[in-house]
Order: sequence, then C-alpha cells, then structure tokens
Amino acid sequence: MTTQHEFTAGMWVYGQIIDRYATDGYNDAPSTLDVIQQAADSGLVGLDLNYPWPEADLTPEEVSAAMAAVGLATVCITPVIYNRRFRSGSFSSSDAATRRAVAELADESVDVATRMGARYVKFWPGQDGYDYPFQVDYRQLREHGLGGVRDVARNHPGTTFAIEYKLKEPRNRLLWSTAAATLVNIEDTGVDNLGVVIDFGHSLFAKENPAEALHLLHSRGRLVDIELDDNYREWDDDLTAGALHLVETLEFLHVVQQIGWTDPLKLDLFPYREDRVRAVTESIETLRRLQDCLGTLDLDALAAAQARHDAMSVQSLVRKALIG
Amino acid sequence: MTTQHEFTAGMWVYGQIIDRYATDGYNDAPSTLDVIQQAADSGLVGLDLNYPWPEADLTPEEVSAAMAAVGLATVCITPVIYNRRFRSGSFSSSDAATRRAVAELADESVDVATRMGARYVKFWPGQDGYDYPFQVDYRQLREHGLGGVRDVARNHPGTTFAIEYKLKEPRNRLLWSTAAATLVNIEDTGVDNLGVVIDFGHSLFAKENPAEALHLLHSRGRLVDIELDDNYREWDDDLTAGALHLVETLEFLHVVQQIGWTDPLKLDLFPYREDRVRAVTESIETLRRLQDCLGTLDLDALAAAQARHDAMSVQSLVRKALIG
Amino acid sequence: MTTQHEFTAGMWVYGQIIDRYATDGYNDAPSTLDVIQQAADSGLVGLDLNYPWPEADLTPEEVSAAMAAVGLATVCITPVIYNRRFRSGSFSSSDAATRRAVAELADESVDVATRMGARYVKFWPGQDGYDYPFQVDYRQLREHGLGGVRDVARNHPGTTFAIEYKLKEPRNRLLWSTAAATLVNIEDTGVDNLGVVIDFGHSLFAKENPAEALHLLHSRGRLVDIELDDNYREWDDDLTAGALHLVETLEFLHVVQQIGWTDPLKLDLFPYREDRVRAVTESIETLRRLQDCLGTLDLDALAAAQARHDAMSVQSLVRKALIG
Amino acid sequence: MTTQHEFTAGMWVYGQIIDRYATDGYNDAPSTLDVIQQAADSGLVGLDLNYPWPEADLTPEEVSAAMAAVGLATVCITPVIYNRRFRSGSFSSSDAATRRAVAELADESVDVATRMGARYVKFWPGQDGYDYPFQVDYRQLREHGLGGVRDVARNHPGTTFAIEYKLKEPRNRLLWSTAAATLVNIEDTGVDNLGVVIDFGHSLFAKENPAEALHLLHSRGRLVDIELDDNYREWDDDLTAGALHLVETLEFLHVVQQIGWTDPLKLDLFPYREDRVRAVTESIETLRRLQDCLGTLDLDALAAAQARHDAMSVQSLVRKALIG
Repeated sequence: MTTQHEFTAGMWVYGQIIDRYATDGYNDAPSTLDVIQQAADSGLVGLDLNYPWPEADLTPEEVSAAMAAVGLATVCITPVIYNRRFRSGSFSSSDAATRRAVAELADESVDVATRMGARYVKFWPGQDGYDYPFQVDYRQLREHGLGGVRDVARNHPGTTFAIEYKLKEPRNRLLWSTAAATLVNIEDTGVDNLGVVIDFGHSLFAKENPAEALHLLHSRGRLVDIELDDNYREWDDDLTAGALHLVETLEFLHVVQQIGWTDPLKLDLFPYREDRVRAVTESIETLRRLQDCLGTLDLDALAAAQARHDAMSVQSLVRKALIG
Repeated sequence: MTTQHEFTAGMWVYGQIIDRYATDGYNDAPSTLDVIQQAADSGLVGLDLNYPWPEADLTPEEVSAAMAAVGLATVCITPVIYNRRFRSGSFSSSDAATRRAVAELADESVDVATRMGARYVKFWPGQDGYDYPFQVDYRQLREHGLGGVRDVARNHPGTTFAIEYKLKEPRNRLLWSTAAATLVNIEDTGVDNLGVVIDFGHSLFAKENPAEALHLLHSRGRLVDIELDDNYREWDDDLTAGALHLVETLEFLHVVQQIGWTDPLKLDLFPYREDRVRAVTESIETLRRLQDCLGTLDLDALAAAQARHDAMSVQSLVRKALIG
Repeated sequence: MTTQHEFTAGMWVYGQIIDRYATDGYNDAPSTLDVIQQAADSGLVGLDLNYPWPEADLTPEEVSAAMAAVGLATVCITPVIYNRRFRSGSFSSSDAATRRAVAELADESVDVATRMGARYVKFWPGQDGYDYPFQVDYRQLREHGLGGVRDVARNHPGTTFAIEYKLKEPRNRLLWSTAAATLVNIEDTGVDNLGVVIDFGHSLFAKENPAEALHLLHSRGRLVDIELDDNYREWDDDLTAGALHLVETLEFLHVVQQIGWTDPLKLDLFPYREDRVRAVTESIETLRRLQDCLGTLDLDALAAAQARHDAMSVQSLVRKALIG
Repeated sequence: MTTQHEFTAGMWVYGQIIDRYATDGYNDAPSTLDVIQQAADSGLVGLDLNYPWPEADLTPEEVSAAMAAVGLATVCITPVIYNRRFRSGSFSSSDAATRRAVAELADESVDVATRMGARYVKFWPGQDGYDYPFQVDYRQLREHGLGGVRDVARNHPGTTFAIEYKLKEPRNRLLWSTAAATLVNIEDTGVDNLGVVIDFGHSLFAKENPAEALHLLHSRGRLVDIELDDNYREWDDDLTAGALHLVETLEFLHVVQQIGWTDPLKLDLFPYREDRVRAVTESIETLRRLQDCLGTLDLDALAAAQARHDAMSVQSLVRKALIG
C-alpha cells in the first residue's frame, strides 16, 4: 500500500523573493508570523526555518507556540550562512573571524533547534566553494570547509546535522556539490551525526537521476530529509513539484516508498510570480495524484521487468500507472 | 475534438545502429525489405527513407511496391549526405567536388521521391558546420552551405524540400541549428519551396520549448513535417516518445492540434538495446494516451488562464488532464 | 593592424548586487555619482545607464555633466523594465496597464537618451517570456511582446533601439532568446530602427558560438553594440572577460576586427565578491593582451586554412598567437 | 621546476572511428601494426591497448615486440567490454552468462597485461548503467556492477585495476559517473588494488572542475592515470588538448605538478576528420607550451592569493603566465 505522506516546506517559499534584477523584491517582505499563517493555510504540517528570522525580538518559544497553534512543527533550523557576511565562504572562508562567526551561528542554531524540538540542523553552504579556476587551493578549501562542519558536529554529538548539497549557486562551484561528493566529504569528516538532505531539483541539475541518488544516500545510512520541486535540469528553478518531470518524480516517490520513508516530504519552491499558497497546494495535489498512480503500479511486474533491465516493459507499466 | 493521428517513422529506427563503441553494431543489419515488414508490423502508415538504401539493385518502384503491399507510403526521401564521403561537410564542404557530389545526390533524390510519390525531400545536413573555434570563415560557410541548398531548390521548383535542424552531432556545431536559425537561413536562400522538419528531441536539446518552436515555424509558413521522440535535454538520445517529457509532449500535441495538423506524425527513435517494433508501438501507445488526455483538457479554461499567464491554474488543468 | 578599442561598462557593474540568498546585498548600495567615479577610476570611456537611477532628484543633465567631468559618455539608456512592477512581463505582460507603463517608461527613456546624447536605447526584456509549459499562448505572447517594442520604435523613428537577447533569467524562457530568434522577431516587427546588442556570455550560454553569432548579426545589418564577459556556458555568470574562454574570446575579437567595429566594447560583469574596479581593469587588461595576440595572428595563413576547413592548421596558428 | 612529461595515447586515436551516421567509418580501419607505427610517428612513448585487437593471430608478445621496436610501452590493457556482446551491460548485465563472459575477458586481459608489462588493466564500463527511469533496480545494478569488478580485483591481487569514469555515453546514465561516485563505488567494493583514471574531458562534462577532481582522487590515494583532451562541457567530444579550455587545462597541469605526477600523460582523442598524427602532435605541442607557461607562473604569489581566495590577483597571475 502506498503511504500518503504529509508535507512540510521551507519558510522561504512564502518569503519576499529578491533576485539580481527585481531588487525591490517580487513581493512584500512578510513577517515570520505571516509565513506561519500562510503555511498553515497551505495544509502543511511543518516548516524548515531560516535562522535568524527577521524579528530580533521574537524568541524560539514564541515562534514554536505560534506554529503549534496552527498545527505546524519545526522540521529543522537552517542557519543563514549565505548572506553578505558569508559572501566569500562560511565554513570554508579564508578569513578566521568569519569561520568563527559561522561556528557561533551554528552553535546558536543548535540551541534554537533544541528549544523548538526540531529534528535536525541543516547546513546549506551555498557560499562554500569558488568561482574562478585557480582561485583556491583545494586542500585548504576542504580543510576549512569540512573541518568547520566536523567541529560543529563533534561539539554537539546529540544533534543531527544535515548538508543540503547543490552543484552551484550562488557560488559557481560548491564544495558540497553532488550526492556522491557529499558522501565522500562526510566520510572525510569522520563524524556520525552528519547526513544529507536530498533536494529533487538539486539532484536533477547536478545531472543525477534523483531516484538513484536517493537510493544511494539511503543505502549508505546518511539520508536525513527529502525535498521536492522541479526545474529544467540546468538551474535550481524551484518550480512546483511535478510541473515538468512527472516520470522522474514518480520514480523518486517509488524509491521513497521502497526505502520505507514515512516522514513528511518537504517542498522547496520559489514561486517568484505565483500565489505561494497556491504553489504549495498545487505541488501537494500533484504529488498526491502521483502517489495514487504509484498505488496502481504493478510492483511485481515492475520488479520482474527491472530484473531483465527491460526498458519497454517498464515504460508500458509506468505509462499505464500515469496516463492509463 | 482531438485528432487521433496516424504514425510514420524513419527507416533507421529498424536499422543496425552502430556507434563509436559498439562498432560491430547493436543489431544485425536488416535488408530494406525487412525494415518494411517491421514497419508494417509496428502499425505505421509510412516511412522516411534514407537514400541510397543498401541494395544497389533495388529500384524505387520495387521499394514502393513492397511498401504499398503492406500499407506504407513514402513520406520523404532523405539522401545520405552525412556518411564518410561527406564527413567534412556536404553542401558546405570546402571541396568543390564534394559540393557537386551532394548536388547530384540531391537531384537523384528528387527523382526517387517523384517516382515513389514522396511528399518531400528532406535534408539533414549533419556534417555542415564545424568543430573548432576559428575553423571556418562564417561568410564562406554560409555561402556554400546555404547556396547549395538554394540551388537544388531552384532547380526543382515543383518539389518541396525541408531541412531538419539540429544543434550538433555529428559536427560539434551545425549550420542549421535551431528553429529560428533555420528560418533566418531559409530566408537568406530566398526560395519558396524550402521548409522545416521539427524534431521534438532536437528542439528540446537546442534549449527550445518544442511547442513554442512548432508554433513559430507554422506561423511563418515553413512547417513541413513533425517528428517525435524524447531525450534528457542535452543530447539527441532518441528515446521513445513520452518516455520523459510527458507535459512538454502534451503541450506539443496541443499546438499540433491548434495549428490544424492532420498529417501523420513521424517517429525518430534509436532503440539501441530495445526491440524496435516494441519501441515504436510503445511510443504510439503513449502518444495516443496523451491525445486522449488532451481530449479531456478544458480548452476554454486553458485559454482563459493563458490570457492571464496564470501558471498555477494552467498547472492544475494540465495535471487533471494527465493524472487526474 | 589590430584596433585597440576603448571600453565602456554597464553601471550595474558597480552596483550593490543582490541575489536571492544574500538579500542584504553583496555590497553597499552606491550612489549614481559614486558609480561614475568608480567607472572613471577603472579607465572606462562610457556607461550604459539604467533608468530611472535611484536618486529621483538627479536630472539627466546633472548626470551627464558629472560623467563628462571625468571623461565618460552615455552609451545608452536601459530602462528598468524587469523589476517588481514588470515581474510578470513588460511589453508582453497580460495586463494592459502594465503594457502602458512600460511604453511610458520607454518614451521617457528616449527623452533621457536624447538629453544625454546616448547612442541608443536598450531594451533587455528579461521578464518577457514564461516559466511553465502551457503558461502562455505563443501567438498572444508574440503579439504583445513584439508589438509593444514595434510601437515604441515607430513612435521614435529618429532613435536607435536595441534588444539585448538572453536565453533565460529571470524568466525560465525569454521571448528574445538567441541571435537568430531576435532577428526573426525584429523582422516580425517590421521596423528599421531596431537592432541587437550581443553579449558574449549570453551567446555562450545560449549554446551559440559568439563569434558566429556576431558575424550573423552584422551581416544582417542589425548589430548595435557588443558586450563582453565570461561564464561556464550554462548560466549568465558575468565573470571577468577572458577568465575562461580565451580561444573563443580571441575568435570573437577577430570577428570584431573583421567587421570593422571601432566603437568601444562594453563590459557586462557582476563582480559579486570582487573589487569592481579591479574586475573591470583585469577584464580590460586581458582583452588588450588578447588584441595583442590577435595582432600576431597570421591572417593570410588563417584565411588559407579556413578555406580548407583545416582545424589542425588553425589550431596551430591560434596557439602560436596565444601561448607561443 | 616544471616537469616536461612524456605522452602516451589510446590506440583508438588512430582507429577507423565510426558513429551512428558515418557507418562506413571516418577512415579506413587500420591494422594494429599500422597504429603502432603512427603512434611512434606522433612522438608517443606508450599506448593504451584495447583488447582483443582485430588480428586474432597476433600474440601479445608480437605486439609488444612491434611496440618496443619503435620505443613504445604498453600503458594498460583496456578490454572491449562495450561492444555488441555487452550492449546491455558488462559487469552489471542482468544476464548471468554475460557477466561470466566479462569476467573471463577480464581474466584474459590480466594475462595479456602481465605478458606485455602493462602498468594496469583499465575498465571503462560504458554499457554499465541504464537509459530510462525505472529501468533498473539500483540495489541490483550496484550489486552486479560493483560485485563483478570486486571479484576480478580480488582474484588478481597483484594487478592494478582502474576505472575510467564517465557521466554517460553510450548509456544515458553510467554507474561509474563522476570522480566522487567512483570513489564511493570503489569503497563499496572493499578492494585495494582498484583505482581511477581521470579523463580531463569526462570530468569537464560531468560538471566537475577537472583540477579539483584530480586533487580529490590523488588525496584519496586512488589516482592511477591521467588522460587529456577537450570538449564543449556537454559531451565527450574528444577534441585536441587545449583546443578550448586553456585556463582549466593549465590549472589541471598545475595540480598534476603539485601532486608530483611524473608518469607520462595520456591523450584520449577522436580526430574524426583530422589527420590523427597531426591531432596528437598538436595536442602535445599545446600541452608543452602550457607547461612552459606554468614554469613562469609565480607560485608563491599564487599560493598567497589562493590563501585569500583572491580571484582577481589569481586571474592576473594566470593571464601573465598565459598571454603576457
């Protein structure tokens, strides 16, 4: 039987959204409490929270209470290690003071996560990398970039940490780039409480097949969370889930099922020009229909065809499940 | 009401298929009569024929008769202007003798097309282009490459010619690369009996949206034929139709409908490791299901949403048509 | 003899630069007068000015005077048709009021350009396009998107207008996407005073060879200006000129020379994390060295090798010119 | 001081070269002895030999003697595990008989390698992977694909084996896809005598920075050999070394130097339309000039700039080394 998952989202889905052209933002900047309300209106059960949030006087307990009041849990705390302060690197910065700053923010995030009952602390080291050939010494980049994460993880052995990997953006090249590169990096840190958040879209544009990457991360015991969205395979467009890659999304959900994942699935969208509640509800609706399709997929026939690597039989089964 | 199209295919779908690694071929080399039988077995109504075919003693009339006997028409003649003889260019070759050779082959193809009742003669100038920066003088490349096609078209004013554009392969850069580049080139030739074959997959990996490219070619009066297949957007993988891009294929079929196209749709597949009859029947089945889906799409609601550029409403309509 | 060009730049090179992650900006927001000073310090002779600039009380004449005082000319006026107001389209917006707003801003830009002695008015319609399949009706998109530009051009027959084409960003798909698509679009407008700005980096990531695209635009009489930068061929990274593609940049400069272009060359950089004066001076220095290399290229031998499409001889000549 | 490396090549550089269009080959098929002569004429010191070679009656000792006579060593034996017999997978085939066949060919290759004094046996598992979503069960694919390689390596503990990774082609998705994926796979095999051949071009189109990948493989003690060539970052074009990516090739050679690599560097070219001796000598000449450039690079200044992640200073140093 197919699990019908609950859904969570990153709070940024409801954010102002700015880019280098619409520097006045695609929307008005919402308050954290607005975001919480919109998330509840979208039918979500949890949020991935960027920390610090804009309101300096809002305590973790107050945010937690506001969330609980509308049925939302804190999935994870994602410290903002990619804004101007960390523009040239967070853990991997060449500047010792910046490396201390990110370590302090990480410690603070652990504290906030604990106070809010978050399942994990997520690092998205989007400024850890480089832009030009020859710009960095790779040994040094890895020493700082991995070492900083390792130290935080060691200092908080009771906390689960996770890296969300991404091939690039905002840096042209990132240190935590693909599923496999992230596994190699984690192994180099030598810590146990560090895993991976896979984002379907990041996987697509890293030239992976997301279903295969999901399988790999799970088989190595490092899967911490799962994010969904879509893109044109060349950039992190953060379109609504299933907007483009129905077959690959279905296969991804099939592996989600196969590995026994029952936690909520998280949405990572940037609805620049769309109503954000609608973008979330459309994504959820599409994913639920895909899970219905999955429920009709003949798994025995699929396994038999896969055992023969029989693309045409598989194609036929998948087509029937999807469009009849 | 949705038109249920008939289907044709390139005869190469049933070919041996060789690449630079499996130089002993992925299959045995079939005879032309074998190909015709397999095409009939696949439920097709026509073939795009590469000329010359392997059997030197087989006349166009004999091939026509064999095709007619199993209900197949000749869609077009596609002269082989991309094998060893033309490895450094056909119409655009720097060698005058090679340019004469391609002109002669083109003349011969017109004759064969006429004798077989083909609708058009197709040029796929896959060797017309270059590989390295600085390799060619662009003025000269265009002069030869466009001029040669223009001369053939002028010499046969009663014949319809069509270019199948492609971004690259086997040359790293091709002269007839995208829908728009092909329109510009055709205009530079100044002839009226020259149009375009759009291949869904070529359009995808040229970074176009195939539906938009189809609309453009039709709106400029240059659309001659339509080919279907699928790929990962980076190379001409020639996978079965609808294998990956269900939404884009549906939109493509929607525009096919919109422009009033009622001719058969052509399949351009390279089933390296698959049973080729099965690859064709799976493609047809998928396309027929997509046309069924299209029949359930609320066109008035779609038009209204499109008039507002309302992505979320469109998304919802398309989802319902596809997966309920 | 090789022309040693002067250089200009977009004023955004010295801007704050914001993206969707560093929403507090990579730098402090500079005043227009600061930008002018930095541009002068960089050795430039002109600026491409975004209009309106931040200071509402600064007149075109005041800006002109400040520029003239440090030896800078106004290359062009680039109206801001891509910020929040135009987030869902400027000329191609589905909203009539927005289309009127962009037309008014265009008129105002013509007036400002005239008062500042700018050579042309540039449109970069970065929001004119769409994000999702099925989102727009292509006929309607072209009608509004091209029609709006046509009307402005007709209303100001004495002004030169130019489109800077780009494959995508911020929209996932843009209406003015490639050199050839832009030529087709311009032809559809039917106006004479509308041309094209080619950006080396936009051309690279549109999967063109920039040198060939430059040749094409010039040969059709539509080239208005030339911008330089670099990227990894997948996104508009706006790295310093020559940072990655030395050979392609050299070939581009070769065609610049060949077509007799003597106007300044414009830099389009986004030095997120770099000193911007340094980014400009490094770019200029690299381009000047490349022009020196070009001066040593044996043009007769090159032409002879190109006439044979002889890649290896060309390769040898280019290598000698570049690295000895 | 910069090491001036010797050069080797794959014997396929001098092969007939066939693709799916020029099925009559880009050249005549050479004999193995012809290839040896051409390799010697190109100034090489060794060859990577595909096994079996075409001549069934030619013994390893005879080939060795012919090579020795013209100063060529056998770099490695590369069994042909990607032709028709293995079209649907070699080690990872779903067919037990095919898996036995590849194991036997591997054993035979070890024997040949030993008799010819080759440094290692190279596997390029270009058919181990899949083409369609859902086509394989990933656990099973890895079990067979990794297990088969592991067994061979265990059975020959005195032999060095190496995997040449590649993102795709001929399969759309390969099991040994990137440097990091290959490290993870190797670790999963648990054997010590298995390493990696990095191909500059494979790394480029896998969206890696080749210099960084080279560093990573060396730092993990798994680097076995190094191949050079060039491409447009989207496909394995196998152009001459340095044809496009001069800066990235220079950085790659810098890391080659940094890790103390003194063995010859191998060329992996497919000169479809070029004189192959010329393609090799041009590549060598370009690489030698780049090594000369490297000799002028101020390494202390570079290290200081890298310690600050100072892209502009690095850019300036690299420019001076390359083009003055």
